[in-house]
Parts: sequence; structure tokens; C-alpha cells
Amino acid sequence: MRIARFSIDGNVAFGAVEGEGTVESGGLVLDIIKGIPYTDFELSGTKVPLSKVRLLPPVLPNKVVAIGRNYAEHAAELGNEVPDVPVAFFKPTTSVIGPGDAIEYPSFSNELHHEAELAVVIGRMCREVPRERVKDVIFGYTCANDVTARDAQQREKQWARAKGFDTSCPLGPWVETDLDPSDLTIQATVNGEQRQLGRTSDMIRSIEDLVVHITEAMTLLPGDVILTGTPAGVGPLNVGDEVAVTIEGIGTLTNKVIKRG
Amino acid sequence: MRIARFSIDGNVAFGAVEGEGTVESGGLVLDIIKGIPYTDFELSGTKVPLSKVRLLPPVLPNKVVAIGRNYAEHAAELGNEVPDVPVAFFKPTTSVIGPGDAIEYPSFSNELHHEAELAVVIGRMCREVPRERVKDVIFGYTCANDVTARDAQQREKQWARAKGFDTSCPLGPWVETDLDPSDLTIQATVNGEQRQLGRTSDMIRSIEDLVVHITEAMTLLPGDVILTGTPAGVGPLNVGDEVAVTIEGIGTLTNKVIKRG
Repeated sequence: MRIARFSIDGNVAFGAVEGEGTVESGGLVLDIIKGIPYTDFELSGTKVPLSKVRLLPPVLPNKVVAIGRNYAEHAAELGNEVPDVPVAFFKPTTSVIGPGDAIEYPSFSNELHHEAELAVVIGRMCREVPRERVKDVIFGYTCANDVTARDAQQREKQWARAKGFDTSCPLGPWVETDLDPSDLTIQATVNGEQRQLGRTSDMIRSIEDLVVHITEAMTLLPGDVILTGTPAGVGPLNVGDEVAVTIEGIGTLTNKVIKRG
Repeated sequence: MRIARFSIDGNVAFGAVEGEGTVESGGLVLDIIKGIPYTDFELSGTKVPLSKVRLLPPVLPNKVVAIGRNYAEHAAELGNEVPDVPVAFFKPTTSVIGPGDAIEYPSFSNELHHEAELAVVIGRMCREVPRERVKDVIFGYTCANDVTARDAQQREKQWARAKGFDTSCPLGPWVETDLDPSDLTIQATVNGEQRQLGRTSDMIRSIEDLVVHITEAMTLLPGDVILTGTPAGVGPLNVGDEVAVTIEGIGTLTNKVIKRG
């Protein structure tokens, strides 16, 4: 099931996405969900065309834990070795935006990069999750763009600003709850031109590895998000660009880059 | 004014701390605040002895932004240079605990360290704060312990686990809103023995510098916290230890270290 979060006439709700099509092409309908989708929930039967709503980030994370250098070719393209231990960092809630929202080019950078990533959405509070229970704590998957001020990342030893500035974490367009994430194509285009292309099967650490590693240290809450690293092909974003992250079986997350107002 | 957050009989509230004394010695009373203290608020006049309540973390941050290597002697004691740019990282909300709460020794570390720090509590939503407006966005100050798994910090390039594990961010005992933070003694004791001692006047970057630097990139929200770095003298914490952070003009934040259950 595809679960979106949206606003219509000032009200915010979750809805199950029904029908065939894309955000852009139309033909999709939202069946409004009663309450919060992380536990057993009911569909209300009240339906609204997706074209009539504003899609929001499909989750409200308490935290976003992101993983660096999880595809060998990407580590190599930036001159980095594959790390012995996963490189884990946070993106704050204030960085999260939804599909169609603008990425604001930060004032402290001259080198903004896209990083297409598979995002794992957590469905239940968990800590010290054993490998064989990882599937039980996952609610679903969405597309993410780990937008990065590459120059600041290289200048600043920790990445709070370079990867945590406002609008640096587009998520969407919805969460797909029925998906085998082990071998999906993941790509990024800029203005329709392909830049990144990879397969989730090329991750150095699997989703199971990452959930075990993270929850060894910290509690994850429903709606928390894990970004699983980006494949090769990262590159610049400029003001006016439209960047799209597409993951097989999920959909496409599109955002424009604007000058910060 | 000293503002605490507490629970009594299952209810949570903020209160203004009145009277002379400490958490341990007694003599303090809480005047319950109507609502949330970040805007204009009223005291209810209903008073409860502090000894009858459980103190909670004095703020509910959306994010905690912490600064590394902001005292030259501390950078030197770990063999680090003073960085050209402030080292900024996040501690997640799931790491925050209050005065008297237990620090749980993490399973992935054999070298847990205390780091006594002055914490700045933000009072209003802000971004791109000009230096001369910094004082307007600050609500007050509290004590923090940036508890660190030093071995994991050295092994793992980014510090999400080493400084973000559950219970790694004790805050409290309350927020002091009337304080000049520019030259205060800050110390840490372990089992009553002094380990860290410094003065906030020795910070490499001032609070103004840090707020400007952070808000150049990201929005801060009421209740967000900035940890301003630790003076020299960091050292090990073991199971059974009692660690206390004392800052002149604020008070003492005390926590015990326990084995993770």
C-alpha cells in the first residue's frame, strides 16, 4: 500500500494512494486514513483526487539517521575509502520537506549536490533490534534526497550544517509498505537528464545491518527515517534546476532548487 | 528566573523555582506556570515543594546542536587542533534525560567520558540571526553533559552513535533565564572528585558566534538547545559513578551511570 500525507483546505491527513499513474500525470486518488497509519488503521472510504491536495512529507520523523559511503562506487568517486564501520549522521526535522517543495540553496555553500537514497520508515518504537526482527520494525520505504553542501562538508569535520540545513531532506512522494527493497533501481535526474543510477543490491551494508547498527545505540520511534546511502553519480544542483529521485516500486520525488528568499 | 519542568502524580508542568537551596538540600518550591514558558506566561500561585516532584529535562528540544573543540585546552588534551570552523553535530531527542536520571553505559563502548557544557536554550523560532539579535532568541541557560563513547567517536567518522546513544544528553536541573553567560565557572565532578574545571570566557567561539553559525544553515525552534563545548579534564565514567556538572549561577546536574538493563 502507498501511504501519503497531505493537506487540503488547511486540514492534514494520511491517505492510501489508489489508482494508476504518477503525481504529475494524475489519475490517483487518496482514501483518507482514520488516524495514524503506524498501527492498525482503517480507511475512511472518503476519497479525494491527489491532484486536489498538497502532498506533504509522508512521515513526521523524530529523527533522520543517514548513512554515508554505503555504495562502493560513490565512496570512490569522492576519493573516500569504504569505511570499516558505517558512517552514521543525523539530519534534523527542520531539514525535511515534501514532494514539490523547494530546495533552498544555502548561503554558506557554492557547491550543492543531490544524493538519491532509499529511505526506510520505521513503524514501531525499537532498540537493540536483532537482525531477524528488523522486518518487523519497518513500516515501509520512500525516496529521499540527501542534499549536501559538498564544500561545507569538506571544510567542516562534522556535517550538521552541510547536510542539515533547512530543506536538505526531501522525502516522498509516499511510503510504499509492500516492497522487497533488496534489489531496486535508484536514480536521480536533473532537468530530465540522468545523473545517478544504481541498484540497492549494491549497498555495502544491508538495511538489516544498518538497523542493527543504529539501534544498538539508540531508540527509533514510529516515523523515524533511515537514509541508506547514495549510489555513484552525485553532482551539482543549481538554482532553477529540477531534481527527481526515482526508485523502482515506489515512485518519483521531484523538487526544484530556488534561491533562499 | 529558574524554570524547571517536572512531573507530579502523573501530570507534567513547568514551574518557577523559588527559595534558596539545591535539589539535594531541599528548601526549594515550584510555582506552577500556566502553559509554556517560551512566551509571556503567568505563575499560577500554586506551589509545590521541589522535593515532592520528579524533575524532568527542563526543555523538550526538537534538536540539540552541539559544538566540539570549543575550548583550546580540551582540544589539546585529545590531540586535536583548534578547528578553523566550529565542529557542529546533533544529539537526538532520544538522548535527552533529566537531572537524576540514569546514564546507561552503552554496549558498544568500553570508554565512556563525561563532558560538562553550558547549554543555551532557544526561546523563539529563528534563522539567520544577526549577531546583535542573538540575545533576543535565547530563553536561558542550563547545564549539560555531552556524554561520549570516546572509543566509538574515534572509530566512527561521524558521531551519531558515539554522542547520540540513548541517555547521552543529560540536561538540567532547570533553565536560568537571568544570567550573563560570558564568564562562569563550569565544572564536572565524579563521585565528588573534581575532574573538569573551566570558565566560559575560555570558549574559542562565543555564544553569539555559535548562534550565527548554526542559524546561517538551519531554523532553531523554541526549546532547541545548543551545547557550547567542554573545557579540559574529560575522563572516564564507570558503572556506579555519580557525575555532577555545576555551572556558576545555574546549579548542579547530577546523574548516575548504570549498566544498560
